[in-house]
Amino acid sequence: MAMTSLVRPEAKILRTFRVRVMDKPGYLGQIATRLGELGANIGEISIFAQGPDFLVRDITLYLDDDNHLNHVVEGLKTLANASLEAVIDPVEQAHEGGKIAIRSKVPLTSIAEMRKIYTPGVAQICKLIQQDISTSRTYTAIGNSVAVVTNGTAVLGLGNIGAVAGMPVMEGKSVLYEQLVGISAIPILMNNTDVESVVATVKAIAPTFGAIHLEDIAAPECFEIERRLQEELDIPVLHDDQHATAVVVLAALITITQRNGVDLTASKVGIIGLGAAGSGIAQLLLSYGVKAVYGTDIREPAKQRLATLGGTAMTLAEIMNKSDVVVATTGKPGLITPEMIRPGQVILALSNPDPEIKPEEAMKRGALFAADGRTINNALSFPGLFRGALRAHATHFTDAMKLAAAHAICGQTKMDNIVPSILDREVHESVSNAVANAVYLESNL
Amino acid sequence: MAMTSLVRPEAKILRTFRVRVMDKPGYLGQIATRLGELGANIGEISIFAQGPDFLVRDITLYLDDDNHLNHVVEGLKTLANASLEAVIDPVEQAHEGGKIAIRSKVPLTSIAEMRKIYTPGVAQICKLIQQDISTSRTYTAIGNSVAVVTNGTAVLGLGNIGAVAGMPVMEGKSVLYEQLVGISAIPILMNNTDVESVVATVKAIAPTFGAIHLEDIAAPECFEIERRLQEELDIPVLHDDQHATAVVVLAALITITQRNGVDLTASKVGIIGLGAAGSGIAQLLLSYGVKAVYGTDIREPAKQRLATLGGTAMTLAEIMNKSDVVVATTGKPGLITPEMIRPGQVILALSNPDPEIKPEEAMKRGALFAADGRTINNALSFPGLFRGALRAHATHFTDAMKLAAAHAICGQTKMDNIVPSILDREVHESVSNAVANAVYLESNL
Repeated sequence: MAMTSLVRPEAKILRTFRVRVMDKPGYLGQIATRLGELGANIGEISIFAQGPDFLVRDITLYLDDDNHLNHVVEGLKTLANASLEAVIDPVEQAHEGGKIAIRSKVPLTSIAEMRKIYTPGVAQICKLIQQDISTSRTYTAIGNSVAVVTNGTAVLGLGNIGAVAGMPVMEGKSVLYEQLVGISAIPILMNNTDVESVVATVKAIAPTFGAIHLEDIAAPECFEIERRLQEELDIPVLHDDQHATAVVVLAALITITQRNGVDLTASKVGIIGLGAAGSGIAQLLLSYGVKAVYGTDIREPAKQRLATLGGTAMTLAEIMNKSDVVVATTGKPGLITPEMIRPGQVILALSNPDPEIKPEEAMKRGALFAADGRTINNALSFPGLFRGALRAHATHFTDAMKLAAAHAICGQTKMDNIVPSILDREVHESVSNAVANAVYLESNL
Repeated sequence: MAMTSLVRPEAKILRTFRVRVMDKPGYLGQIATRLGELGANIGEISIFAQGPDFLVRDITLYLDDDNHLNHVVEGLKTLANASLEAVIDPVEQAHEGGKIAIRSKVPLTSIAEMRKIYTPGVAQICKLIQQDISTSRTYTAIGNSVAVVTNGTAVLGLGNIGAVAGMPVMEGKSVLYEQLVGISAIPILMNNTDVESVVATVKAIAPTFGAIHLEDIAAPECFEIERRLQEELDIPVLHDDQHATAVVVLAALITITQRNGVDLTASKVGIIGLGAAGSGIAQLLLSYGVKAVYGTDIREPAKQRLATLGGTAMTLAEIMNKSDVVVATTGKPGLITPEMIRPGQVILALSNPDPEIKPEEAMKRGALFAADGRTINNALSFPGLFRGALRAHATHFTDAMKLAAAHAICGQTKMDNIVPSILDREVHESVSNAVANAVYLESNL
């Protein structure tokens, strides 16, 4: 197969070295040379401050680990004409003060302006909405707002770390929403873990939002929370971990199988790990028309759940032996050994940050195609799913909307890749339109 | 007394007339002249669009009422060389799509940037917070976020219009927070009216915020909701309607009495209407040291509440007869008749949009000073109260913080006025600092 999997170099430590140097030709060369000798890869170099005869430069370095970091710091000390002023962690720096803020869309420069947007002018708009609540879509931010709700019970690969520790992820979602599709996504953190109180709380604050995005809530509670909220609210509710990943997995599998002249619906697909993501993937593949969906999990209820969806529970060994396509979402690095791989299999090992099997190892054992979680990123689908749902005033997310999103992602995929770039705004616009169209089509049935 | 009360002209209807005219000298003069004949006051004039030989101008007009509006529209029809293309309501226009949005503080321009603010970089910050939850103040937006919570039971002078119809007010608060002190204020709408469920809901989502601003919640539930939340949460909780107005009233009264050589603490102050605002004013005046605080209300429990605070309940007539200072917050226009005014009284008739007595009528009857709710605006205090509390990591709002805010407002008042301008950013910075200092002083006691 002509495609290559998108295996990128392992993440290293990133640090910005703030260095004071003489502002004369040759001095930067000395530093860069020394950094090279010390084994540091140099990224961007910018000027932080400037004096009469010196510069303070911010030099971005990619390092192996903390030992390497110490080695480079020590190694720079012996360099004449340069002093290390600070070692900055750019990840921490990007998070300082949080990554999101509420901003006013209207200026507040005069009393006349204030009388329009606050008292007394605002009363006119309040009365308008009181008389016809649907006008709140036009005259408030509600219709463009999504609550990103978490209780922090299943954050990334980190597990149950609590809602507040999960906030950087929620803010990250918010950044993606704003930058990719212009939605105001508002993190809502709660420490409740039981279904009843999560449902009661979200229902109570639901009038504030146009839709509810559930995030990083652990299985099995996530299933019941989503089902209850969708049943009891008249705005769309979606558990990102279940469905947004599933949409991207389906899109990738459609693309991979089509390019290889294989009918995905006739393929045997094995899902390893039936938590939120695995369960959502199984459900969407069945909805797409895949006839043989196998699954396994160490938790017995998860396997029973698969059976109710229409899949078949079996052992890990059976799945690896029988499946044409294997999708793993277990959070267990190395669970799939190279010996388990059958030549010609498609392997998506999605656990972050470390996959069940590295794509290059699977390819070495003759896999037709292999990728990991860095490629299959749910940020390809959730912005457009919600943008489309809000645009079409949908009251629910349906399988038709998710399938439309998957097809839109396929259509936006470049021939060299299996999914598009997350930063390609056209992708998100295309997904939004496809989802909105699906709503219109269903409402006309 | 040398000061004049800040009586401004009554609010009229504001409309933008979009008019297409020939782009030649003299044509605007014709339109302006005709508008003058029709009794319209002209505000700003801007150019909306430009053609080869014409201009489309947006002309802001202040009109008396809907009849006047129709009269002006009809009157323009007979004018040659000009056609009215649209009549726009600038208040509606300012509200279109809502007045606030969540924005990213970090750019999303490269995959490298995304790996810092989303996966995998974000995991490092999550772990940091998991180990030490206090770092969430540094690395998330929580410490700069305030929930503006309402159930819509007492919105402006409009009463119980529901939370969604109250959203334009909440967004207005949010605009003021962002523009005046840089706080992210997030409206939270709920339709629950009972104390238990409001308290349970706010407690559940409290981890998201650095402080809780309760807004437009009706008495008497507002008292219990605030008390319970402040008791059960370790972040500051303040019911704006009770305390923010009280701070501005106290500041105005200190200024007025000092300038007249009167000791406010020795004055007799009568409060007419003991809802949220009246009750908060009574409480703060007593805390400031005013010995004689009288109050009245048509609701018996409200009067009992005043007695428990240390005030004295009496009739409206008794209050008007005995008080040196009268503060009215009843929502009943015209409740105070000119005959009730005693010469030398200070009258603050605060109900919006129509006061209990017009300041000019009170002045005519010999009042020492009179003002209405357009002057005494709680937007002078709540931004700084919350900014100061967040800055100092306060866990509660105390009387010392409110008194400090009132004194700061006094210090920022120009000699010609009784309170400062809301748009003066120095005022809010001064209030913030005073409140933060009060927290430090109290914590050192």
